[in-house]
Amino acid sequence: MKPFVEILDTTLRDGAQMEGVSFSVNDKFQILDHLVDFGVTYIEAGNPGSNPKDREFFNRLNANKPNMGTTELVAFGPTKRKGIRPDEDTGLKDLLSAETAAVVVFGKTWDLEVRDILRCTNDENLELIRETMAYLTSQGRQVIFDAEHYFEAFRSNPDYAIACLKAAQDGGANCVVLCDTNGATMPDEVGAVTAAVVNALPDLKIGIHCHNDSGMAVANSQAAVLAGATHVQGTFNGIGERCGNANLSTIIPNLQLKYGYSCIPEAKMELLTPIARAIAEITNIQLPNGEPYVGTSAFSHKAGMHVDGVKKNSKTFEHVEPVSVGNARRFLLSEISGRSAALDIIRRIKPDIDRDAPEVARVLHTMKDLEHQGYHFEGAEASQELLVCKELGLYQPFFTLEKLRITNEHPQTGAYSAFTYIKVLVDGVEEVTAAEGEGPVNAMDRALKKALQIFYPELIDVRLTDFKVRVLNHEATASSVRTLIESTDGIKTWHTIGVSTDILEASWLALVDSLEYKLMMKKLGWEK
Amino acid sequence: MKPFVEILDTTLRDGAQMEGVSFSVNDKFQILDHLVDFGVTYIEAGNPGSNPKDREFFNRLNANKPNMGTTELVAFGPTKRKGIRPDEDTGLKDLLSAETAAVVVFGKTWDLEVRDILRCTNDENLELIRETMAYLTSQGRQVIFDAEHYFEAFRSNPDYAIACLKAAQDGGANCVVLCDTNGATMPDEVGAVTAAVVNALPDLKIGIHCHNDSGMAVANSQAAVLAGATHVQGTFNGIGERCGNANLSTIIPNLQLKYGYSCIPEAKMELLTPIARAIAEITNIQLPNGEPYVGTSAFSHKAGMHVDGVKKNSKTFEHVEPVSVGNARRFLLSEISGRSAALDIIRRIKPDIDRDAPEVARVLHTMKDLEHQGYHFEGAEASQELLVCKELGLYQPFFTLEKLRITNEHPQTGAYSAFTYIKVLVDGVEEVTAAEGEGPVNAMDRALKKALQIFYPELIDVRLTDFKVRVLNHEATASSVRTLIESTDGIKTWHTIGVSTDILEASWLALVDSLEYKLMMKKLGWEK
Repeated sequence: MKPFVEILDTTLRDGAQMEGVSFSVNDKFQILDHLVDFGVTYIEAGNPGSNPKDREFFNRLNANKPNMGTTELVAFGPTKRKGIRPDEDTGLKDLLSAETAAVVVFGKTWDLEVRDILRCTNDENLELIRETMAYLTSQGRQVIFDAEHYFEAFRSNPDYAIACLKAAQDGGANCVVLCDTNGATMPDEVGAVTAAVVNALPDLKIGIHCHNDSGMAVANSQAAVLAGATHVQGTFNGIGERCGNANLSTIIPNLQLKYGYSCIPEAKMELLTPIARAIAEITNIQLPNGEPYVGTSAFSHKAGMHVDGVKKNSKTFEHVEPVSVGNARRFLLSEISGRSAALDIIRRIKPDIDRDAPEVARVLHTMKDLEHQGYHFEGAEASQELLVCKELGLYQPFFTLEKLRITNEHPQTGAYSAFTYIKVLVDGVEEVTAAEGEGPVNAMDRALKKALQIFYPELIDVRLTDFKVRVLNHEATASSVRTLIESTDGIKTWHTIGVSTDILEASWLALVDSLEYKLMMKKLGWEK
Repeated sequence: MKPFVEILDTTLRDGAQMEGVSFSVNDKFQILDHLVDFGVTYIEAGNPGSNPKDREFFNRLNANKPNMGTTELVAFGPTKRKGIRPDEDTGLKDLLSAETAAVVVFGKTWDLEVRDILRCTNDENLELIRETMAYLTSQGRQVIFDAEHYFEAFRSNPDYAIACLKAAQDGGANCVVLCDTNGATMPDEVGAVTAAVVNALPDLKIGIHCHNDSGMAVANSQAAVLAGATHVQGTFNGIGERCGNANLSTIIPNLQLKYGYSCIPEAKMELLTPIARAIAEITNIQLPNGEPYVGTSAFSHKAGMHVDGVKKNSKTFEHVEPVSVGNARRFLLSEISGRSAALDIIRRIKPDIDRDAPEVARVLHTMKDLEHQGYHFEGAEASQELLVCKELGLYQPFFTLEKLRITNEHPQTGAYSAFTYIKVLVDGVEEVTAAEGEGPVNAMDRALKKALQIFYPELIDVRLTDFKVRVLNHEATASSVRTLIESTDGIKTWHTIGVSTDILEASWLALVDSLEYKLMMKKLGWEK
């Protein structure tokens, strides 16, 4: 049996502190689903007292009580305030209101902060920690204590730093977490301090929470585990304030594949890359190509020598099997993983197709072409299935666009700034119409639906539920734009994509796919 | 006296292996200048035998013999081929033709590779290494031996792995470098192997060369130094094949500021951020905002509590002084931070303003209002400073928009899909013009600049360098859109923002801010 290391994912809480990141409640639910699927031990989802979005998230979650398998949700908040009874402290009330089985409470252990920030005596702080833990435990909560600035605390006063953790233990804390809050500490020191804590508190679960200001967040987390920590906090893709948090998409495979610990169910490891990429997509960040394990370049081979080396013996230039983490070796993509991935999608539509059928090669070729242009079919399965239908000859255009003209005017004169005129042809019948909208995409969406509903009344129920835009490269306004659209007919939800140098054309392509997918579903009888 | 650790920068050689990177000869000279200025010990500039660009680089360099201070240039190539006399080996000839005082030679030390790739006996390989070193030394070269796959080699056959390094030493090598070629190794193992090598070869300089496939390149380099290595190879910004090489812009400050080694002259450390950014610019890569030490977010503070903490004692949330590495502290004015952050921004424009001046409250109020609408001033300081100028009464509109009409047409008829007509008024003078573009934002940008340049010729140099779009909430196409634009005039770079339910209006607002910021800078005399 491999030693178990708990993973607490704080993408939704500490990750959300990253500059430019702002999760909607729906984003949070999507990320939650991925993390549950991956099988992390804990998901730290926010602080119900800190903002209305977190409050709404917990309310909706508690109203629905989704099945989370072995994963526990945790809420996050501070220790109680000085001089307030725990049962009267609004922070603790908020924390309890999240109705999670476990909570993470952060507190001070650095004597300098106790003096200057809390402005109380060292003993008062010990009592404050103990009392907070005891109260939350008495309310049936499992409590994890995040000890802020723990390495500064230990450097300043090791005895007091240990005494704080002891106070948490005395109050009933289930786990104490050493936080390198400002990312200052080097791995050798993290290892030594963790070992000292493990030695001083042998019966307590010890955790680690690192920031990446010195580029050491992953190395420090691992150093702590080697020194005896069994609980690791981090975020997917390392998002977080300043230089980010410890990156779980590196730590988890390092601990599990390199060191032989167990963090998530073994079979789940191949979800690593798709989940990291999906979370990056939801976060709207660009995952660096060179991201360890999950980046698109992580297993790509450029130098001829390396390609040869990999062909002779993959261990010479690959530290793990790319498929073991759900990634792919790049120069073989067209031959092996590419083909079987394409086959997978094709079999959704034509289950009995032969592996060597010419359509498989054709689909693969088209997909590679489109990906080269900036298409990204992960998260746009409806566009991908439409593409397969086209290559298999199952698709006939549902309409022909004769003319589309989108006009924006500023300063605007009426209620709407945008106006779209459209002319389509369906089975030889022409339809000319127009619509106004709040912005050009909205006007285009309305006009297209208005024109096609006459021929396809089933489109009346279709509406867009999400719209995402990503600029693909950095050549200013003439660069490529990728648009992702989520649509629903009230029963099914699907995602489509468009890419163009023109943001409106990219949106148009995704809109057309959205409506054609609905029509295609009906034609092929996929609607239940 | 602090212990000295040599830095060998291989941005120009191993860094150039990165997917999408291709240095021109001029690029190489520009990077060289920066690295010489920074004071690294060695610059590995390429292999004169491998391609004509590297050949041209060395030729031009040797023709000019620039002053490189204490920095040595090195050329890179393989050990001689089996069965060829060293003085007849073309690889070694090429290496010598670079006319550098020092050379880096890479060779095999892993018995598996000796057998399968070199196809010779272990002893033949030892002789090959020794002979190569001896020949190059006899030609007056200082030789550094890069031992490829050293950690696999040591795992497979430690005695032989040591024997290879001994052969290099016997041949006269000045330094042997342990290479984690496929980035597989964890820091504890790197430390242990390095210690074993240092112990076995006490009189030899030991180096380290790491790749980042496990996210450990920096941590591994440091682990080797702690174990006795005194020569570190890496690249600026960690560029390199797959997941990149060890990032010198993290290693150098970590070794020098955290561990107390000396790598570069102390006074040069404040060049770290400008040099990292300049090299990223030349490499044409996007430096992640969260890059340790040098990223734009590395010292930004968002959460109100953190802002307070930093103001009370900067050590609480900053691991080093931002100015010590040439970076700057930034306070992000988000919902949760307050008056003191606003004051900071206002004082950039009006340094002597009183904390309680009514303008401060007004700026704060306006910013909060705008943030509620979806503005996000982090990363859009130019818009923020313009806003402050407006509230302080320093701003007068530079033009009035009379009419803007943007038209998109599909299927498109000519080279461009978008067309913009614009009418502006500047000091009572009307200008009507139009422009086409690849997409509406591009067309708008061109039209606006075309109209305003007539009145403000200083706008001729301004161009957009980045464009980002974020959909703010999820109410489909009618939801709010936030646009961020990066602009430059070739000297300064600035960021502006626009928010609207109409994606084109959001882009327009950011474009207008971009040009008005440039004009405002001139008016207030901020331009150097």
